[in-house]
Amino acid sequence: MRELGIGLIGTGFMGRAHALAFNNARAVFELPFTLKLAALADADTERARRCATAWGFAQAHGDWQALINDPTVDVVAITTPNHLHYPMAMAAIAAGKAVYCEKPLAVSLEQADTMRRAAAAAGVVTRVGYNYQHNPMIGLARQLIAGGELGELISFQGEFSEDFMADPASPWSWRCEVNHAGGALADLGSHLLSMARHLMGDVLSVCADTQTVHAQRPVSQGSAERTAIAVDDQVHALLRFANGARGTVSSSWLKHGYKNHLSFVISGTQGTLAFDQERLNELRLCRAGQDGFQRLLAGPALPGYAAFSPAAGHQLGYNELKTLEVQELIMAVAGQGADGSDFEAAWEVEQLATAIRLAAREERWVKPQDL
Amino acid sequence: MRELGIGLIGTGFMGRAHALAFNNARAVFELPFTLKLAALADADTERARRCATAWGFAQAHGDWQALINDPTVDVVAITTPNHLHYPMAMAAIAAGKAVYCEKPLAVSLEQADTMRRAAAAAGVVTRVGYNYQHNPMIGLARQLIAGGELGELISFQGEFSEDFMADPASPWSWRCEVNHAGGALADLGSHLLSMARHLMGDVLSVCADTQTVHAQRPVSQGSAERTAIAVDDQVHALLRFANGARGTVSSSWLKHGYKNHLSFVISGTQGTLAFDQERLNELRLCRAGQDGFQRLLAGPALPGYAAFSPAAGHQLGYNELKTLEVQELIMAVAGQGADGSDFEAAWEVEQLATAIRLAAREERWVKPQDL
Amino acid sequence: MRELGIGLIGTGFMGRAHALAFNNARAVFELPFTLKLAALADADTERARRCATAWGFAQAHGDWQALINDPTVDVVAITTPNHLHYPMAMAAIAAGKAVYCEKPLAVSLEQADTMRRAAAAAGVVTRVGYNYQHNPMIGLARQLIAGGELGELISFQGEFSEDFMADPASPWSWRCEVNHAGGALADLGSHLLSMARHLMGDVLSVCADTQTVHAQRPVSQGSAERTAIAVDDQVHALLRFANGARGTVSSSWLKHGYKNHLSFVISGTQGTLAFDQERLNELRLCRAGQDGFQRLLAGPALPGYAAFSPAAGHQLGYNELKTLEVQELIMAVAGQGADGSDFEAAWEVEQLATAIRLAAREERWVKPQDL
Amino acid sequence: MRELGIGLIGTGFMGRAHALAFNNARAVFELPFTLKLAALADADTERARRCATAWGFAQAHGDWQALINDPTVDVVAITTPNHLHYPMAMAAIAAGKAVYCEKPLAVSLEQADTMRRAAAAAGVVTRVGYNYQHNPMIGLARQLIAGGELGELISFQGEFSEDFMADPASPWSWRCEVNHAGGALADLGSHLLSMARHLMGDVLSVCADTQTVHAQRPVSQGSAERTAIAVDDQVHALLRFANGARGTVSSSWLKHGYKNHLSFVISGTQGTLAFDQERLNELRLCRAGQDGFQRLLAGPALPGYAAFSPAAGHQLGYNELKTLEVQELIMAVAGQGADGSDFEAAWEVEQLATAIRLAAREERWVKPQDL
Repeated sequence: MRELGIGLIGTGFMGRAHALAFNNARAVFELPFTLKLAALADADTERARRCATAWGFAQAHGDWQALINDPTVDVVAITTPNHLHYPMAMAAIAAGKAVYCEKPLAVSLEQADTMRRAAAAAGVVTRVGYNYQHNPMIGLARQLIAGGELGELISFQGEFSEDFMADPASPWSWRCEVNHAGGALADLGSHLLSMARHLMGDVLSVCADTQTVHAQRPVSQGSAERTAIAVDDQVHALLRFANGARGTVSSSWLKHGYKNHLSFVISGTQGTLAFDQERLNELRLCRAGQDGFQRLLAGPALPGYAAFSPAAGHQLGYNELKTLEVQELIMAVAGQGADGSDFEAAWEVEQLATAIRLAAREERWVKPQDL
Repeated sequence: MRELGIGLIGTGFMGRAHALAFNNARAVFELPFTLKLAALADADTERARRCATAWGFAQAHGDWQALINDPTVDVVAITTPNHLHYPMAMAAIAAGKAVYCEKPLAVSLEQADTMRRAAAAAGVVTRVGYNYQHNPMIGLARQLIAGGELGELISFQGEFSEDFMADPASPWSWRCEVNHAGGALADLGSHLLSMARHLMGDVLSVCADTQTVHAQRPVSQGSAERTAIAVDDQVHALLRFANGARGTVSSSWLKHGYKNHLSFVISGTQGTLAFDQERLNELRLCRAGQDGFQRLLAGPALPGYAAFSPAAGHQLGYNELKTLEVQELIMAVAGQGADGSDFEAAWEVEQLATAIRLAAREERWVKPQDL
Repeated sequence: MRELGIGLIGTGFMGRAHALAFNNARAVFELPFTLKLAALADADTERARRCATAWGFAQAHGDWQALINDPTVDVVAITTPNHLHYPMAMAAIAAGKAVYCEKPLAVSLEQADTMRRAAAAAGVVTRVGYNYQHNPMIGLARQLIAGGELGELISFQGEFSEDFMADPASPWSWRCEVNHAGGALADLGSHLLSMARHLMGDVLSVCADTQTVHAQRPVSQGSAERTAIAVDDQVHALLRFANGARGTVSSSWLKHGYKNHLSFVISGTQGTLAFDQERLNELRLCRAGQDGFQRLLAGPALPGYAAFSPAAGHQLGYNELKTLEVQELIMAVAGQGADGSDFEAAWEVEQLATAIRLAAREERWVKPQDL
Repeated sequence: MRELGIGLIGTGFMGRAHALAFNNARAVFELPFTLKLAALADADTERARRCATAWGFAQAHGDWQALINDPTVDVVAITTPNHLHYPMAMAAIAAGKAVYCEKPLAVSLEQADTMRRAAAAAGVVTRVGYNYQHNPMIGLARQLIAGGELGELISFQGEFSEDFMADPASPWSWRCEVNHAGGALADLGSHLLSMARHLMGDVLSVCADTQTVHAQRPVSQGSAERTAIAVDDQVHALLRFANGARGTVSSSWLKHGYKNHLSFVISGTQGTLAFDQERLNELRLCRAGQDGFQRLLAGPALPGYAAFSPAAGHQLGYNELKTLEVQELIMAVAGQGADGSDFEAAWEVEQLATAIRLAAREERWVKPQDL
């Protein structure tokens, strides 16, 4: 079996999550390649070396371009800060390598557009880390929709809220910078927009409202000095989908009590379906004619679950969604991928987010495809 | 103690609910009047007589104007179809009597405007049946907000959805007629708008989307003949409140599995508060610094609950909200009323609903107070 | 239609609940009698008079025997402290009147035995206030069981816990006295035992464990003086039912967070059914072959619900269970009663509770029917 | 850093779960050893070789004794059928190696007793796979108890039920054999008993009821031939703990809708704490003086969670509990282990299960320590 060399850039939390996912993917899945953890890159060479050992990578690089040039590397995984996604991905594409980039794809719609065009021109496989979509329960939701079990889709109401910025004393970070793709809409909302498109398809037009609630934050933890904040703390939007459905999306990072509340309710002529990432192993479904919602619990009837456990109710965790994402990536490299989140899809997510921002700024309905 | 004569127009479900509420209010509350069930009116004289006996009314009238003229009647309760609210309430106001009218106040904003002006000019006490607001848990929500326990309010996300029209074979009824105040927004949404105002205060501007999903329905149950439907099946709107908060409201009568899902989540700088009418004895609250939501269960610390039960957890029902509404009405007649839903407040709800319809039709933001 | 005269003894919370229930029953049900609130008795004549006026009773008595002798009284409702149930019920039976007695039937098994024999000998209709059983959702549970939808019954696990005695500083009250039917088992557990029998039928044998956790309590609120407590704070028991099912029942009044947690899970060969009185309008059901539990919400398909509301999701409250109990009583007086909780049934509940106490004391399995 | 060689016996689901856990433990934890996946054994040599490659083991053995003798193996992990735990663990102990054995420790109390004595005599580190205890939320529960936040413990009510044998057509398997540690009590209940001891400490005495509901099952899937079943389908027991608390434990594998319902409610004088493995990232807590239960969601304040994610709400899964178990094992080998589930503890669990069986058979209270 052919060997596929994995090169990983970045050694932070997300870097380690990728390392775990590649390691676990080869243990739990029958893959069409032998995965080889070929190289790990970090600007701090010493750290690169240490993590390479701990995580099982064959080589360490202090320079990401070296990793991209490394002939043992076939797939480049990018887990660095958002503003570096563009140069790294463009270099990897130029080198003809598959690219697996964390979300968001880029820090501007223009960058994203350039990236998707370059990837298409080069014919390389790309994937973007919208990991929540790889949940087998989301796969089940897609199946239910595709199988017509909800009938025609009428509405989608989605929210992704957390509370990690709820305290006005939470200081400035890169997440507060527009040119690092900061703000609740870019940081959280883009996951929700991707999910909405994954389940409902294209969005024709949007109207929206964004707000910066805490206009100043400390420059660092505990500092008395404050800096102005330009990014949105919360966003609410109206959506019209190409399939005729209507709906809302909302996102806030100020909402006490929510930790990972990526949630939606989809209403169709034949049923209603609800999900909340805080209980990622569950769906709630009410079919026409039933009296109330039924709780569906993840189990081995779903292949993505069966890979990890033969028994229902044993619960997948967040990191396993990442492993499932890696599997999907590898299958795509082998030409067997389903319609996953490639650069084209990620660009459409960015386009939709841009439309929401424009609609809010100009207080009018905006069509994403007009951007 | 002075006797207060109650005159009730209408003998349907809501008429009976009023009768029960007046009966129970005098048993459970210390009221400043002796309540007398003076007269009951129904166009069907025989039915009026039968219900008067069953429900304990002293007299029966076949003519509602006769009930209004009846000198033993001090308060006129109106539970007839929506298009009759206007003439009945105007006649009662003209007779100088207090008016307790079911929602919606009227079938057009113009009617509502005339009614609130007439009531103000005549100086009569008025109330409109937004009964969900009388839930002691809603009172507690108001207390928490007023006491600053949520900090400054940031967002309100509300929904009132049911599924009683979800089946496309559900036939036409008066609820499908614009001039009977039909449609999801008027029928369900107006409760939600009233609740939003009750908790959050004035709305400055709205943007919205309404949709008729099932454009035709059978003219009657089982009929093959179909008639065109003009009213909305679902509505989604963006709201900006005078207090600076933003939010959404949604309403649908097509949503399988929802039976009385009048719900909201209010986010503030110091906490988040959630409610769902399908579990009307509960609130969920997360304060800043707490790890997660706490379930608050209705109990006798709340006066409106204590009136019905000395022990926590014994659960109030829908009909008891009506009894609490009657108490509030009687106190208002005695000049001791809190800021309840009078004709002025109900007109503001209608104004807001009208703004939502206009915003949807013209695809732009609309200020209710400009109407 | 014949008039049926109601005599009510007691003007406390439960007295008022009865008064409301009789009033409401005649408004919401088609009854085979005209109900007349004939007389109200309280040892405090003045209070009897005041409450009679407020609640709509024709006469007031300062002496309960006088009420029983009152020829306008056909049904005697007893809501006095537990130790008075016996003399009052025996007098009412002797007078040939129907008796509606609050639970527990008596303060000893001997009293209960005498009462049920006297009632049988006199041929009078009797009912005991196990009001939770009149919940339409419990009726639905019985229907599901009777219709075989759970298959053969395998287990019943029930709990009735509250927290009103959880604070060790909660003082002594009559609820702490054995000869007033105090203790968690008698006060709360008897409702659960009655429910278990209502749903599962006879119990063949029990083994149990009871415990007094707080052996002393203040003699009154805030007092430094303490008195020894002999009654149980918590009880756990194993049950074997005549139908072959096994199970547990538990009761505690020390369990923080539980306010009215009368709950059960019934397991059958074809499904599992769960209920919690803190959400009395809901059942959770999982049928064989389904993936998970479905929430059933009370609605007008259930006659006991339809009497109060024509629309699903509007929620019944505790007091309406009492109104349903009164309806059942009146139907029984008319000879149309279903198998309700009469003195015979209540004696069997007391017998079961006595068996549990004996099993705990002697640390062995006990057969209730051997007592 | 010293290298620690891991030898794994068994290549089924649980074998793979161990392999994943060892791999992930070295990536996510700072361990006092360099973990080396030294050898994998399976009776099928070819399969051993294939899995060794896929899972990253250096060597493969077709004979488990060879693996134990392998000088590169320091820790022997046993994931074979239950009846093989005894000979394998005894051989590993004899070789002076640390032993990590899946639960149950053995198929008889005598075996378990021999094993714990042998381990103690040899001074080797042992661990048994009661993986649910390694959930950070269970760690939090222990902290809350140890910190006195629940006050004195009053009761424990636990249940571990699933539905994988609910269908009477589910065929015989080794789980139906007494001498393979089959039956609901041994298979599921032992996890619950271990959890009860982990949280509440020693059990002084028990009374119990066990039942075989389906006395015959097909010999294999779809077969018309049936074989008699001797093991319990369900068990209910009363427990008295050494700390004075009382309680119940129940287990069934016939309960439709339950997939992994390892759950408990602990009541103390200062609070109530509830857990359900089907939502393993949550605890529900009500402290004295609070109105209701609060949901605690796993987050990075708990070290066992922080190892996998820096952000709250991202959810751990079942396999990560196994990784945490491996960490605890490795720390124990380094002499830094907390009081984990070693052979001594596992023997006490078996003793308790044996006491429950005896109590059920002889219908009397039994003291585990008398066995």
